[in-house]
Amino acid sequence: MPRDAEATKARILEAATAEFATHGIAGARVDRIAASAGANKSLIYAYFGSKDGLFDAVFDAAVVATVDEIPIDADDLPAYAARLYDHRLERPDLLRLANWDRLERDGLGIENEAVQSALTSKVKAISKAQKAGKVSATLKPETLLEFIIALSQTELNHPKGSRAAAAHRKRISAAVAQLIGTVA
Amino acid sequence: MPRDAEATKARILEAATAEFATHGIAGARVDRIAASAGANKSLIYAYFGSKDGLFDAVFDAAVVATVDEIPIDADDLPAYAARLYDHRLERPDLLRLANWDRLERDGLGIENEAVQSALTSKVKAISKAQKAGKVSATLKPETLLEFIIALSQTELNHPKGSRAAAAHRKRISAAVAQLIGTVA
Repeated sequence: MPRDAEATKARILEAATAEFATHGIAGARVDRIAASAGANKSLIYAYFGSKDGLFDAVFDAAVVATVDEIPIDADDLPAYAARLYDHRLERPDLLRLANWDRLERDGLGIENEAVQSALTSKVKAISKAQKAGKVSATLKPETLLEFIIALSQTELNHPKGSRAAAAHRKRISAAVAQLIGTVA
Repeated sequence: MPRDAEATKARILEAATAEFATHGIAGARVDRIAASAGANKSLIYAYFGSKDGLFDAVFDAAVVATVDEIPIDADDLPAYAARLYDHRLERPDLLRLANWDRLERDGLGIENEAVQSALTSKVKAISKAQKAGKVSATLKPETLLEFIIALSQTELNHPKGSRAAAAHRKRISAAVAQLIGTVA
């Protein structure tokens, strides 16, 4: 694909992310996405097939953003959980996309296959830390990761950078420390 | 209110719960709710003011169902978490309502004030168990409750009563045991 086409596609995905996060799938308007991206509506259909196909592409990119952008340090999972929380506060649109997918398409959220596969390298890192005795092996690594993600998705109502957010960040870290057995 | 009116109101709320859980607020049709409840559409507006007012009533009832129907045993929080998970599998409509509220009205989910107030007696029970040394006091009781709820809302894709659900129920209990410090 020529460079211009790539740039257009990226602009469409960015506009579509905002539109779907705000309005959901049924409520999203391809017209608005086209206008916001400065792209032709027929081009959107040519690239993505349908509004649903466009949502798939947006959702896949969101999964990558959610999972891949936050590096894991399995030797310090409390800090990893805190970073996940920060990222959730920074990108509220990503969780909204997952929730629309769940509500409108019976999607599975983080139980989604694509998400699970994106999490594979993180599961491996946790498994290694468990074998090294640094993390309690009471829970399977994939379960531990799932629970860490669940904890990091609480109290998303605090403004990013607020004292309330900082306080909750600490609570998440403390809970993860308990969960992995590093606190008696 | 006479008994007949109470019964009609209850039928409207039941029909509205199903309609809102499936279609969300924007997508819900008062016509369908009226037909399903066997009630007059104008009666719905007389009772609840508007579609939004009806959603409020449904959401409040859902909060009560979510919070009040599951008795807490603060001396056995792992079992309490397992019961919460069972209830989530049994009533997927309740979490859907909370998610629609979050997406369409910027609602706060379990951070909602009404929910928090409904949780008060449970927070007190946990606080008591902490003072009695039965539960780790690393986390504040309200935080502990919030995290237990978050853990109990994972892997809701398993059919109720399935082996996968039973297995995940155990994982949730194990995690809560770690969290409250009853497992070394």
